[in-house]
Amino acid sequence: MIIDVHGHYTTTPPGLREYRRALLADPANARPGGDLGISDDQVRESLERAQLKDQRERGIDRALFSPSAGGMAHHEGTEQVSRYWAQACNGMIHRAVTLYPESFTGVCQLPQFPGVAPANCIEELERCVNELGFIGCNINPDPSDGYWTDPPLTDRWWYPLYEKLVELDVPAMVHVSTSCNPNFNGIGAHYLNGDTTAFMQLLESKLFEDFPTLRFIIPHGGGAVPYHWGRYRGIAERAGLRPPEQLMQNVSFDGCVYNVPGLELLIRTVGAGHVMFATEMYGTGQAIDPRTGRPFDDTSSYLKAIDLSEADRRKIEHENALRVYPRLAKVVG
Amino acid sequence: MIIDVHGHYTTTPPGLREYRRALLADPANARPGGDLGISDDQVRESLERAQLKDQRERGIDRALFSPSAGGMAHHEGTEQVSRYWAQACNGMIHRAVTLYPESFTGVCQLPQFPGVAPANCIEELERCVNELGFIGCNINPDPSDGYWTDPPLTDRWWYPLYEKLVELDVPAMVHVSTSCNPNFNGIGAHYLNGDTTAFMQLLESKLFEDFPTLRFIIPHGGGAVPYHWGRYRGIAERAGLRPPEQLMQNVSFDGCVYNVPGLELLIRTVGAGHVMFATEMYGTGQAIDPRTGRPFDDTSSYLKAIDLSEADRRKIEHENALRVYPRLAKVVG
Repeated sequence: MIIDVHGHYTTTPPGLREYRRALLADPANARPGGDLGISDDQVRESLERAQLKDQRERGIDRALFSPSAGGMAHHEGTEQVSRYWAQACNGMIHRAVTLYPESFTGVCQLPQFPGVAPANCIEELERCVNELGFIGCNINPDPSDGYWTDPPLTDRWWYPLYEKLVELDVPAMVHVSTSCNPNFNGIGAHYLNGDTTAFMQLLESKLFEDFPTLRFIIPHGGGAVPYHWGRYRGIAERAGLRPPEQLMQNVSFDGCVYNVPGLELLIRTVGAGHVMFATEMYGTGQAIDPRTGRPFDDTSSYLKAIDLSEADRRKIEHENALRVYPRLAKVVG
Repeated sequence: MIIDVHGHYTTTPPGLREYRRALLADPANARPGGDLGISDDQVRESLERAQLKDQRERGIDRALFSPSAGGMAHHEGTEQVSRYWAQACNGMIHRAVTLYPESFTGVCQLPQFPGVAPANCIEELERCVNELGFIGCNINPDPSDGYWTDPPLTDRWWYPLYEKLVELDVPAMVHVSTSCNPNFNGIGAHYLNGDTTAFMQLLESKLFEDFPTLRFIIPHGGGAVPYHWGRYRGIAERAGLRPPEQLMQNVSFDGCVYNVPGLELLIRTVGAGHVMFATEMYGTGQAIDPRTGRPFDDTSSYLKAIDLSEADRRKIEHENALRVYPRLAKVVG
């Protein structure tokens, strides 16, 4: 069984974008979106010819499916806009999961807003987990979307949200959204910087002493971290921090690395027990690699090319996911 | 011959720090530092027991030596403070080079300041290159030191400085300074993010069409880039940009990666013609690795462990440096 822990519903029917435009055009009069005028047939069509087709072709059994990361754009509008927008995006995930319960499981977007304490996310998190059956959430470590003006992930500012995550026993993927800073290309800089930054925040902190069962997934192969593993070991050694290996009790990296040498370095460096299969479909890698004739995000082909024991392969393909997302085990049965 | 393209004079005698304190205590009355009350014997002592000792032990013949990167702290004080501070720091480099011309060659800090056009750096660059014999400079892509509020490296804002770099035929290492943003640990996040960000800015731009002979070095093994090389190839393919391989006509990565698998991935991915030996002494890797008993920044030992042709090893050890820094060839003779 292959579980993709990092899928995004980026192919939503036009009604979702139209609702977003309306929210931002008149934030003071924001209203819930309802069914967005989107039919179930539109949802089916948006997935059948896209993610579902690719999943089937690549032997992927199930994707943990969350709203478009770039589309979260937490810095736009108002806190209320962010709330309605999260509800609408999560509603679309719920519809996808309801139509294809064997292929998708829900991971939710949170109604973060710059300068607003993350406790404001608890209500939507509970709704998604308890009412809609979602099994995880995405946390944006930079709701300003490129200026990093809110407190680090390890600040007490975040603790009420973490208390709820622990109570619900759902992990969080730390995933930035779009970049409105002209210095940072979204997918080519801000995403990877967000990953690297999150890991270093965690390494410097005692967060997991306060929350021993809290679990984070850092996507895109952990940003720069596995490649620079010796650097992090050296930083920890010098500063008297616990070594980065120990952080991996609470942190996993996804395997969303679009080349064999990178994915192999990741697995050999942190161990197969801390890497989860991922594609980021659809995100960065939709183009066809002229060298292989396959899309860059066809990470199954990279994983196949790496020499692994069957036990290690199972960990990466699904066992780690079932451990890190306990509610997934109940869904998969 | 082994040339370390990335050395920092972080062991300066106390007089330099005292001058800095005075500059920041009363920025309105900033004055040039002169000899900072530092004797040549103090300079010798600060280097003999530190960088020079390590160079000799590791068989490193020469370091391209620049002021402490974290110490640049361009966001502090005023533009005038930044100017005097750059002069003082570059003066210390010049003294080190004058005392040890066989072991060090100068690379200068620039008097950048947030919101001030980089044209303000031309005078100090010319002084260092034409009068002091320096062969390169460090450019801070984020003079705000963690908030990224100035224009990207590819903006015309930077062009007058680039025109001067081209005229003088000196390359620039793109190296951020300290981070005053609590989200970013300096050496564990901001440094690598700066490297990743710079590469992506260059990939998105046509800068090297405007400056075909301009050359940048991206330190710390290129941040996250080589590990995610497929991601960059995919981004370029999708956006109709030239492939990242072509960018390497104007860009080199240093080999400051503190583990064998990372350094090997770097060399195999971008090719030995685009990697230059580097230690970052002293920066991040001073601690002793308990697994080897050697400092993490002993990159010579990592390079030795990698199977390379003699031709490729020579490129990494010195030939690339002599090509990328043409004025170095005149110094080495």
